[in-house]
Amino acid sequence: MPQDRLSTTFAALADPTRRAILARLTAGETSVTELAEPFAMSLPAISKHLKVLERAGLIARGREAQWRPCRLEAEPLKDATQWLERYRAYWERSFDRLDRYLQRVQAQAADGKTKSRVSAARKDSAKRRKQ
Amino acid sequence: MPQDRLSTTFAALADPTRRAILARLTAGETSVTELAEPFAMSLPAISKHLKVLERAGLIARGREAQWRPCRLEAEPLKDATQWLERYRAYWERSFDRLDRYLQRVQAQAADGKTKSRVSAARKDSAKRRKQ
Repeated sequence: MPQDRLSTTFAALADPTRRAILARLTAGETSVTELAEPFAMSLPAISKHLKVLERAGLIARGREAQWRPCRLEAEPLKDATQWLERYRAYWERSFDRLDRYLQRVQAQAADGKTKSRVSAARKDSAKRRKQ
Repeated sequence: MPQDRLSTTFAALADPTRRAILARLTAGETSVTELAEPFAMSLPAISKHLKVLERAGLIARGREAQWRPCRLEAEPLKDATQWLERYRAYWERSFDRLDRYLQRVQAQAADGKTKSRVSAARKDSAKRRKQ
């Protein structure tokens, strides 16, 4: 089991339902019943996901006896983003490398068919880099 | 088991050894033996971590028979960062809320002792926001 905070954050994010719950909570705090609605899941299954998010400090729950609204606590996501940001130069570099490679292939390409395929790939690479 | 790519990326990052391996690979490609050196871990244990990273597309391994160098493949980290960036407004907002609260407390504070404590907390909040 991961113990450090960054591992706990990433583990909590490694599930599409939990990410969908966080996305839902950007619209404001809500009850567990409301949260469960869009998912084909039992309340206990949703509760289990909420416990993982709560332990990771990504949500907080109200203390009202009957209705314990969940709200987003985004701060751990800041630390996760800071960790990831250190790698920005590397993913940008890999796109540059791909682009240079495609330029070289294009320059060498003799027939028009190869050229149009390469040109489409370069456009795609440029588009992905802009995202 | 998570199936979607974002879940696979986050699950791969949810371990301090795997994050340390990625950090090491920013210095360039290297052998498994070299990678294992700084860790108090057996080669099979390191190999298991490398397999998780490889399946997540975060590293690639050379095809040389004896020496299969590992290199960083940063692109999945870009998608993870894009997902996290959507929450930036929320973690910034929570700092703003804390700052406003501290301003209010400071305005109400009658004695100097409380003031200096609050002022230190505000400075800390401003510092953390800038990080």
